[in-house]
Amino acid sequence: MSTIEMIHAAAERLKPVMRKTPMLSSPFLDEIAGRRVFIKAECLQHTGSFKFRGGYSALSGLHDVKGVIAFSSGNHAQGVALAARMHGVEAVIIMPSDAPVSKVENTKALGAKVVLYDRATEDRDALGAEMARQSNLALVKPFDEPMVIAGQGTVGLEIAAQAAERGIAEAQVLAPCGGGGLTSGICLALGAAAPAMTVRPVEPEGFDDVARSLALGKRVSNSRLTGSICDAIITPISGEITFPIMQTYCSAGLVVSEDECLHAMKHAFERLKIVIEPGGAVALAAALFHGDEIEGDAVICVASGGNVDAEMFGKALGMLF
Amino acid sequence: MSTIEMIHAAAERLKPVMRKTPMLSSPFLDEIAGRRVFIKAECLQHTGSFKFRGGYSALSGLHDVKGVIAFSSGNHAQGVALAARMHGVEAVIIMPSDAPVSKVENTKALGAKVVLYDRATEDRDALGAEMARQSNLALVKPFDEPMVIAGQGTVGLEIAAQAAERGIAEAQVLAPCGGGGLTSGICLALGAAAPAMTVRPVEPEGFDDVARSLALGKRVSNSRLTGSICDAIITPISGEITFPIMQTYCSAGLVVSEDECLHAMKHAFERLKIVIEPGGAVALAAALFHGDEIEGDAVICVASGGNVDAEMFGKALGMLF
Repeated sequence: MSTIEMIHAAAERLKPVMRKTPMLSSPFLDEIAGRRVFIKAECLQHTGSFKFRGGYSALSGLHDVKGVIAFSSGNHAQGVALAARMHGVEAVIIMPSDAPVSKVENTKALGAKVVLYDRATEDRDALGAEMARQSNLALVKPFDEPMVIAGQGTVGLEIAAQAAERGIAEAQVLAPCGGGGLTSGICLALGAAAPAMTVRPVEPEGFDDVARSLALGKRVSNSRLTGSICDAIITPISGEITFPIMQTYCSAGLVVSEDECLHAMKHAFERLKIVIEPGGAVALAAALFHGDEIEGDAVICVASGGNVDAEMFGKALGMLF
Repeated sequence: MSTIEMIHAAAERLKPVMRKTPMLSSPFLDEIAGRRVFIKAECLQHTGSFKFRGGYSALSGLHDVKGVIAFSSGNHAQGVALAARMHGVEAVIIMPSDAPVSKVENTKALGAKVVLYDRATEDRDALGAEMARQSNLALVKPFDEPMVIAGQGTVGLEIAAQAAERGIAEAQVLAPCGGGGLTSGICLALGAAAPAMTVRPVEPEGFDDVARSLALGKRVSNSRLTGSICDAIITPISGEITFPIMQTYCSAGLVVSEDECLHAMKHAFERLKIVIEPGGAVALAAALFHGDEIEGDAVICVASGGNVDAEMFGKALGMLF
């Protein structure tokens, strides 16, 4: 189980190596959203996503391992690869064969060994467990792992502090949600550090298992796992550890379309000068285009990652307004 | 004359409103450059460039004015427009007719009145002085103005502090240079706060008046003022106030090609997840592609602005490597 004490401990271990990412805003985005919008720019984190926090948190908690293994569509891969290199241990990363080329290449360039699998037909959990056993490597799960959740929770501690600097105690905090590592970490952090804030997971249409699970009061899965541009946050089902935390702290999930993600990416380009990937843009998309489903005069969105190929980003820039 | 005391005073006035922008890095960029590269991401400043600092510094030093007037290709325009709105006074901005559409639109949207002029045939200084007199507005010059230089100098104070946090006392600091407001402000700040650092102005080919002026020991002008993608840093000649400061503190200027700027923009997209405009990319371009003209094992580049149209950014993303 993850606790606020574990998040504070992870923040201490991460302090010398991670970036405290800025919280950005623009009067132009406020106008579209009809309220003040703040964007926690985790795309500016090392390796281009918040996943470095969880990866480093997990690695820095391991002792006497010769290496680690992880499965990931790309952001967890890069986070673990860099964290492993910083700890001087080897990393093997199992990635889906349809992961963006840049994510695969970057993971290799960070010194990791990459093994590809078929997202539709192979079971990555079984594959990862088997390889970990064979090679005697420690498995670093992408989200359902207390030390990883603790690392992601440091995003929540920073949000609480940066919101307080701006005089904001009450706000809905929108988090892009795949397996729930980031969302549940932020839940625990804000539950302790900013209890008047409400966390809301955001997912793309067709892959909204967490929104449905929260509504039903039990974990349900997505019916498909491919065909989304939001590759970073597509997972079969939320975690056994993460879901109960989200159930305790979150209010209803939000669901956005792919077009809304692309529009949000273009707005972030124009108004904030940051690069967000489609999966990292779902929260901003919800703030900009689903304002009637949000409450309060301020909303905080996590821009969770920016690892997008030039072709996809060019598609977003071509969107008409 | 600007002094380090004026920069510290500007930093105090700016503190509640400006962003302390992050200093970013990537192992991938270090590898290309052959040394450690740090990017001071002023594109993440309010209005998308460092110019907000100088505009706000000047506005906050004025008393009892009904409004201000400024001439600018776009970044100073937006900085002054927002600063004027924050001070509750009107702003008239004189902009060249070939300024990027987004810069003109944003300046209007920030509440300023925009007057267009022809960069090749009209004298913007004379036009600005005449309009200021007619309308009884205070002129906020883009660079040759002590209060503006003091505001830009706050970038230098932050660089000194952020470099010290990373254990860096000696480095060359590369600054995109038009009229020299940013460069001279950084010179004064580092001269006091990090005297082992050397500032080097960077300009695009064909518009390298400052590099030539430093080499000749006297101010010379550019032979043309149009036809560059680096619109943000194209000025006829450096300032009467800024040039002597640069002469005292700077070592030789660096000159980069437009292709190198576009490549640097793509690298910043891929590795840092920030959006830089061509004129804001000259320093990073010099660090990446002119390493043999730079000394030391660390280099700090200012990414001075990110106000670029989608079409131009798409062109940068299409560059082959």
